[in-house]
This record gives sequence, structure tokens and C-alpha cells, in this order.
Amino acid sequence: MRFTSETSSDGVREQLFVLDDVPGALWTPAADAAGPRPLILMGHGGGQHKKAPDITRRAHRFVTECGFAVVAADVPGHGDRPPHEEYDRVASENQARVAAGAELAPLIAEFQALVARRTVPEWQAVLDAVQRLGHVGAGPVGYWGVSLGCGLGVPFVAAEPRVRAAVLGLGGASASSSAENAALITVPVEFLVQWDDERVPREQGLALFDALASFEKTLHANPGKHGDLPEFELDSTVRFFSRHLRLT
Amino acid sequence: MRFTSETSSDGVREQLFVLDDVPGALWTPAADAAGPRPLILMGHGGGQHKKAPDITRRAHRFVTECGFAVVAADVPGHGDRPPHEEYDRVASENQARVAAGAELAPLIAEFQALVARRTVPEWQAVLDAVQRLGHVGAGPVGYWGVSLGCGLGVPFVAAEPRVRAAVLGLGGASASSSAENAALITVPVEFLVQWDDERVPREQGLALFDALASFEKTLHANPGKHGDLPEFELDSTVRFFSRHLRLT
Repeated sequence: MRFTSETSSDGVREQLFVLDDVPGALWTPAADAAGPRPLILMGHGGGQHKKAPDITRRAHRFVTECGFAVVAADVPGHGDRPPHEEYDRVASENQARVAAGAELAPLIAEFQALVARRTVPEWQAVLDAVQRLGHVGAGPVGYWGVSLGCGLGVPFVAAEPRVRAAVLGLGGASASSSAENAALITVPVEFLVQWDDERVPREQGLALFDALASFEKTLHANPGKHGDLPEFELDSTVRFFSRHLRLT
Repeated sequence: MRFTSETSSDGVREQLFVLDDVPGALWTPAADAAGPRPLILMGHGGGQHKKAPDITRRAHRFVTECGFAVVAADVPGHGDRPPHEEYDRVASENQARVAAGAELAPLIAEFQALVARRTVPEWQAVLDAVQRLGHVGAGPVGYWGVSLGCGLGVPFVAAEPRVRAAVLGLGGASASSSAENAALITVPVEFLVQWDDERVPREQGLALFDALASFEKTLHANPGKHGDLPEFELDSTVRFFSRHLRLT
């Protein structure tokens, strides 16, 4: 793990790093050096990156309001990572299939399952490395990710026992692998659905929520399109993680 | 309006009253006499009454945490009101129909629409009377009601312009009157669905949420049966009303 930059603003210390070939960003409280503290891993959306505005804005709130550490990494083919030939080829083929009349949602889900086979071990390595840092430590872990971050997050949360609570959503159960992985998730989940989502059919979002095996899971649905998550849901997310990620 | 008793506990003043033939309960902050303040009208569940434990518990939180006034009245045939011959007859007929194989949900919805023709004007009269009291005053009004309180609440909120925000749920759109009234509701709504509700089919709860015309509406669905609302939803309700019922 190699740190490439460090800045501080508004009480938040931001460190950019590279772990093997994965670029990431780590946010921690600027004033409080000692771990362990809860850590949230955030998965960014399609076409976005580790420092996309909706990632950094949430990261700052988790740090300043909860005292958590937050980490995000670029997904292959995104952010500071080079173009990924296989993914680009599959994406182009999918565009052609949709243009020829194929249904979009299952193609998205298949694509996300393909990418997840790489991101799950990458994110596990990021957790390993970040939790070895003195100002993070081995506290409880949360996961936050919607849209692509849900498609990649469901298999990650299913595979990673350190994750104790997850916010997921804007994703569907159209790939059978997605519902199968969801059935392996037993930690508390807050699941976000946009009622008029133009990318994820409503019944597939509801089906993915339904497939989660968690004893405590709560679905929050709001009017609006894929990108229109209301601001008050971030308040709810902050409280959800505060409730579930406590140092014992 | 005739007050029949007054007690105080834990910072909450409770006054029982009768308005015409409607018995009610009013809760206000014991220490703070001056209105106007926001007022929440609560509709109780079937077979319950104005002082049912889940009503008084919520009322105490709205008073102590928000400084609101809260009022609840017995529905005809419930609590301190005499048996209601017509409703009892319809209920018996419905039981017989269900025993003979009829679907339960539409019968419940029809029955609630029948009762609402009486409770809507009763509750409007309660609002009139309570808002004339010096320690309540004419502040913004909220409505809280699930199950029977949703079946009666949807037509009430649709008809009553003083209501600025409502928490509804555990009810469905099986009666066309319910969806029609929901389409007249434009205030912010927090809508509660129990994912494994044995009384309200899931798709009918979702359909009632869908029918609300509100620009801001948020669906919260949780695993469990009709009576199993999780405790953290009350926290959410407190915040929802705090956000929407402010004195201008």
C-alpha cells in the first residue's frame, strides 16, 4: 500500500493510495489519530470513481458525524485505472444487443457479476490493508453502494464476514447470481428503491430486497428516477450505520 | 367539549374529553402552557381505542421529543363508545362471507370506507375544538394511523386541508375508494408496509403507496407480520413529523 497524497479539509483527512494496481481514497477524522474505529467501504456507480461527488459527500458525513473511517477504490476501467479491454468489449456487445431489442436489466446484471469476480477480492485486500493502519484499526465494517455499487456490493457483502451492515439499492434481481448472493446476506440492510427508476424495473428491485436473508432489512422507496435519491435518505443512512457499527 | 379528567406523568399532561358523543384524549407538554404548537391526530387500530398502548407510547414521544400536542378519539364501536349495530351487523356478515371463501382484504376496505363516512367529520370536529384551546392553538396538523387508522386516515387526510404531513400504512388499495382518496393526497407521507403482512396483501400495500399523489412520499417496508412494526420506525416517524410540522 503506497500513499500518493494527503490533504485535510473541514476536519477530514483524505489520503489517496495505490494497493497493487488499485487506486483508492481513505477518509478519517483529521483530529483523532487513534483507531480502532468503524470503517465503511463505499462502492461507486457506473462511469464514476472513488472521488465522485456523491461518494466524497457521504464520506465526509460518515467521518465528521460518526467518527468513522471511509474507503473507496476505483472499479476496473473507472477513475484512474486503465481501460479494461474485456469489460469494454462486453459493454459494446451489450449496447448492440439492447439496440437490437434485448432487455437491458439482465445484461447489466450479468456484466456486474463479471466485474464482481474481480472487485470482491480487490476490496477484501483493501480492507486488509486499511485495517492494518493505526488510525483505522480492526473495527466493525459497513458497506455502502447503489446501482453498480449494489451489483458489486451484493456479492461482496455475501462473501465478506467483516461486513456487519450494508446500505444497498438501485439494483435488481434479474441475474440469478444476484438473488443467490442476496440469499447469503444476513446482516442488517437498508435497501433503497427509486419508485420510477428508468434503469431497474421496480419489481426487480423489490425482488432483490425480498431475496436478502437478513433478519433486519428495511426497504426505503421514494418517487423519482435512478439518480434522484432524496437528501433525507442520507440522514437515514448516517443513523443506520451509527446504530449498527459500534465498537464493542 | 367537556373535559372529564386530567393527569400528568413524565412531563406529559393527559386530558380526557367528550365532544358530542365522541370520547377523546389530548396530550400536551405539562410544563409549557402556551400554544400554538403542531398537533398530531392519531387514528387507532381495529379493536383498539384512543388510549391503546401503541397510541399512548407514540403520543408521549411526540409530546416530549417534539413539544407537539397529540389527540386521539375512539372510533364508533370502540373504546368507551357503545356497540354500533350497523357496523356489528356488517362485520358479522363479512365474517360469514370470509368463512364461505370470500377474499378478506376488499371486505375490510369496504368496511373501513363505511366507517370513514362517520369518522372524517368527527375528527374534523375534534380538530376544530382542540385547536381552539389556548395550550394547543392553530398550528400545523399531522396525521398518524396504520391498519384501521390508515383505512380511516386516507379519506381524512384527503378531505382535511389542515393536515400537512401523514404517516400511514398497513393498509391496501383493494377498495377503489381507497385509491381514489389516495390520489387526492398531496402532502408528504411516510408509508409503512410489513413485508409478510398476513392481512394486507403486499401488492395492495404497494398499490396504495403508488396511488398517493404526494410529491414527497417514502415507503418503509420491513420483514414481519401485520403487528410487527420495528421500533426504529417510530424514531423515523418522530423525525418525519419534526421535519414537516414546523411553526412558521
